[in-house]
Amino acid sequence: MPAPLLDRRDLEFMLYELFDVEQCLSRERYSDHNRETIDAALDVSQAIAEKYFLPYRQKVDTHQPTFDGEKVQMIPEIQQALDAVIEAGLASPGADYELGGMQLPALATSAVFAYLNAAGSTTMGYIGLTNANANLIEAHGSEEQIRTWVEPQRTGRFAGTMAMSEPGAGSSLADLTTSAVPQADGTYRITGNKIWISGGDHELSENIVHLVLARVKGAPKGVKGISLFIVPKFLVNEDGSLGARNDVQLAGLFHKMGGRGQTSTALNFGEKDGAVGYLVGEENRGLMYMFHMMNEARIMVGTMAATTALCGYQYSLDYAKERPQGRLPSSKDPLSPPVNIIEHADVKRMLLAQKAYAEGAYALCLLGTQLADDERTAPTEAERATAHELLDFLTPIIKSWPSEYGPKANYYAIQVLGGSGYVNEHPVELMYRDNRLNPIHEGTTGIQSLDLLARKVPQNKLAGYRACLQAIGETISRAQQVAELSAFAGELQASVDTLNSTTEFLLGSMLEQDIDLVLANSVKYLDMFGHVVIAWMWLKQAIVAAEALANSPHDADAAFYRGKLQAMRYFFRYELPETEVWAQLLRRLDDTCLGMHNDWF
Amino acid sequence: MPAPLLDRRDLEFMLYELFDVEQCLSRERYSDHNRETIDAALDVSQAIAEKYFLPYRQKVDTHQPTFDGEKVQMIPEIQQALDAVIEAGLASPGADYELGGMQLPALATSAVFAYLNAAGSTTMGYIGLTNANANLIEAHGSEEQIRTWVEPQRTGRFAGTMAMSEPGAGSSLADLTTSAVPQADGTYRITGNKIWISGGDHELSENIVHLVLARVKGAPKGVKGISLFIVPKFLVNEDGSLGARNDVQLAGLFHKMGGRGQTSTALNFGEKDGAVGYLVGEENRGLMYMFHMMNEARIMVGTMAATTALCGYQYSLDYAKERPQGRLPSSKDPLSPPVNIIEHADVKRMLLAQKAYAEGAYALCLLGTQLADDERTAPTEAERATAHELLDFLTPIIKSWPSEYGPKANYYAIQVLGGSGYVNEHPVELMYRDNRLNPIHEGTTGIQSLDLLARKVPQNKLAGYRACLQAIGETISRAQQVAELSAFAGELQASVDTLNSTTEFLLGSMLEQDIDLVLANSVKYLDMFGHVVIAWMWLKQAIVAAEALANSPHDADAAFYRGKLQAMRYFFRYELPETEVWAQLLRRLDDTCLGMHNDWF
Repeated sequence: MPAPLLDRRDLEFMLYELFDVEQCLSRERYSDHNRETIDAALDVSQAIAEKYFLPYRQKVDTHQPTFDGEKVQMIPEIQQALDAVIEAGLASPGADYELGGMQLPALATSAVFAYLNAAGSTTMGYIGLTNANANLIEAHGSEEQIRTWVEPQRTGRFAGTMAMSEPGAGSSLADLTTSAVPQADGTYRITGNKIWISGGDHELSENIVHLVLARVKGAPKGVKGISLFIVPKFLVNEDGSLGARNDVQLAGLFHKMGGRGQTSTALNFGEKDGAVGYLVGEENRGLMYMFHMMNEARIMVGTMAATTALCGYQYSLDYAKERPQGRLPSSKDPLSPPVNIIEHADVKRMLLAQKAYAEGAYALCLLGTQLADDERTAPTEAERATAHELLDFLTPIIKSWPSEYGPKANYYAIQVLGGSGYVNEHPVELMYRDNRLNPIHEGTTGIQSLDLLARKVPQNKLAGYRACLQAIGETISRAQQVAELSAFAGELQASVDTLNSTTEFLLGSMLEQDIDLVLANSVKYLDMFGHVVIAWMWLKQAIVAAEALANSPHDADAAFYRGKLQAMRYFFRYELPETEVWAQLLRRLDDTCLGMHNDWF
Repeated sequence: MPAPLLDRRDLEFMLYELFDVEQCLSRERYSDHNRETIDAALDVSQAIAEKYFLPYRQKVDTHQPTFDGEKVQMIPEIQQALDAVIEAGLASPGADYELGGMQLPALATSAVFAYLNAAGSTTMGYIGLTNANANLIEAHGSEEQIRTWVEPQRTGRFAGTMAMSEPGAGSSLADLTTSAVPQADGTYRITGNKIWISGGDHELSENIVHLVLARVKGAPKGVKGISLFIVPKFLVNEDGSLGARNDVQLAGLFHKMGGRGQTSTALNFGEKDGAVGYLVGEENRGLMYMFHMMNEARIMVGTMAATTALCGYQYSLDYAKERPQGRLPSSKDPLSPPVNIIEHADVKRMLLAQKAYAEGAYALCLLGTQLADDERTAPTEAERATAHELLDFLTPIIKSWPSEYGPKANYYAIQVLGGSGYVNEHPVELMYRDNRLNPIHEGTTGIQSLDLLARKVPQNKLAGYRACLQAIGETISRAQQVAELSAFAGELQASVDTLNSTTEFLLGSMLEQDIDLVLANSVKYLDMFGHVVIAWMWLKQAIVAAEALANSPHDADAAFYRGKLQAMRYFFRYELPETEVWAQLLRRLDDTCLGMHNDWF
């Protein structure tokens, strides 16, 4: 039996017990759904993942896409897998019925994608970006744009990208130089070079819809002069059929350490006579619109990182259960048979660390997914606003924590396998490489940390920050009512207190001190906040587990719930205390890094 | 200008100021050498590294060795690079003159190899193993064996390997099953399968000398029944010329995530009529002999990890100095020109972390190298014994700490480059992959941690442990005399006190508690000891730097010494406090991992 891609029991725990997806089924939009329809979608996605995606997971790594000068060539299995997803109606399960979707709640969509991501994250990258692209156009485009570009993306005819970075301005959008010149017919001509465009060219779809940031001639400098354009690979006729080739050319493919199924491209716009572009919304408001897609992409990155961690955990767990080697320190008799390596305390540690990282991170991503759903579909304006506030605040953490700890989990997956983990007979080294991209794209961890401390915390008079601490406080209060959790609730409260006093100190310092100094250790602040939030996710899971155990202690699921409690304990014992170390650094406004002169290196 | 492979100034600091290689030049063995000869060897190695190794560093990654069914095929540049090393006399610079060496002190040899390792670690893997193989035979082989197998390895005609692991017994040597049957002529016939044999087959040398662990028929079970054999690829005639092909066959090559220039092989011994093997020393003492090579290989692994970290640090530093992007938080004017990314506090942090990890780790490896030299060549028996004791104790730390923190340094090297770090236009992703092997081979980190806590600490009535703490104490005493270091000396003393009380607690617990429980968090003990030892290395460097600054504050080197002080400060502020967290876990005999049931996962 091959190792399971994911633990179905855990997925169901997350969906039905931790986040209670059934509760949102009462909303009009989701009224056709019930647990059976969701489970059926999970079954289909698992079957497609195992039948179509898994068989080429490693092949695409050694046969990555190439550019023959005209077209991108890739192994045919990618197209077959995408076709299977599209035929099963899973290209955009959350979209409106009339746009080709099945109006699944976002939580369920995330779980459905989890199997596909686990088996073929780089293939699913095309679908994820396409949906995020369509979501942006649906939110900010004109009715004509929605008609032309959204429906074909929902049904998988077209694919979508996000084109922001340029050779001279990777993360610094203020410096982008791609230009847009308005034409008499209301369109624009786009000229410039973009890099790191995931899915920027391929033959997997009839057309590719690029969402491109550019400056209209005469626009203000900096981020306030950026506009957003739809720039398709092929123009589209009135009737929806493909028209002429637009002036968008593939300049080259990047050769990446991992994630090789998804092309990463350099694109030249308008090398001949300018690429035709269609303005989204108003001029100079492009960055604000793009944040719609970027924020979604950030949650997607966190989710991908968490899923890859979950998958590596299951693989190494399966290996550890079946691989005999060595004996326990207490049993040195060389005549005794070797134990399976799962018996070794340090292997248990590496498995438990993976479980704590991966399931903690995935719970956080699902929380973000639930909030993203709530901000659109919750019944009251107040609920929608609260969800928006909390999600907006949490986004840098949802993006970063899984991205940093997902690769750590995969590090342990390799280590559990030992030498076998380092060779491509087993997929854990591939997961480790795939996952390494996540702390980089859609805003590096450093950028997320500045977003958190310099923007998200202080904005709206700390409204998002306070909403987050209040939500954590509610979980703590509930945990205090559960006898076996009250000590852990106290520990999390102490960490929250440290976090809060550190935050107040830093906010106070912003008024009095050099801002560069106050922000110098922002990554440590992100680390600290992230650990508190993941401890929160674990306490939430522990409450559900403890209550389930109290209700039916002899349930067949008892072992599953015990595992949740033990992973929670692991996180509280081995990880949460780190926040004290980081708080000390922050409270000291440590200037060791900031004060390092360039010529001292 | 390409990025420097290594910082020559730092290499010279390590050699001449920190470890004072010139002091051991008074020994008879090294009397031909002086700073000029050592510098000349460094110049040659740097030139060979840049001319021969660097140009194919990335080519060998995408053109890894293949097996055509008869022979291993690899790109010709590897042979050319090896030839250049051999022709320059650098195949074994530390060996005896009469065996083809140049009797360089071990510290100088390590520095000479550093350039070659930085540019071509996987090519140097052949040379490193060959020397370690020859060293073992020189120490434990017969005169005839030394004559037949050592000299051709010293001069590069033959290569050497270490063949221990088997499919059913990776790290658990007690379970190995390769058998040896004595013959009338005094030789043995070896039969069995070995895996993970680095350099196990290739056409780079005339012959390959395998050192193979096997059981003589009737030997006791477990590690006490293991013998060591020389099993060459080709038999050798009386006159040293090659004889018949021995019955050793390549079963296949492993395809690794990194380190692709060095073949990793599965070998079949004796599939036809048994491979001819020559017993080293006495029967059933093979593991003890093999530790001679294993211990050397462990220091080699640590050194390789540290060198790869140093190289990634230099590359990302060079990039950060030249890549403009973004502005400081204090300067939001979009009209101001972007700064080079080295100006960003978080980039400084990632560079400083690399410097602290890489230079701290390399200093520790050089300390191990110095001790390995002293245990052979120090003038008095007492000095040799002390060096042996301290090295034996430190070996698991020298192997593990650089192996764990070297990849972390390379993680930051990638992160400094952002998206560029993830693609193979730049070599940092390759370094990250190469370095990932080091926590695995020659004994995983978990195995090293058991070696440290269960063997190295208690053995000889804690003699090695006490020698280590005494050596640290001497550095602390010296630092207390330096005004700007006395606070750091106090911090290290506090960490040593915590380490010591934790050690006493654990040793006491071994007498009273379940040994599996006491050892359950041995990796955290290794982490704690490792951090204390690296802090020691940094305090040693800081003393040299502070004294140099005091003597000539306006020296051109002032910036260099300031950098050393700042990196020390980084390690004390950002890393050393972690030891408190780990000590708490250890003092609690935390059983979270040990107590995790298999069915709870």
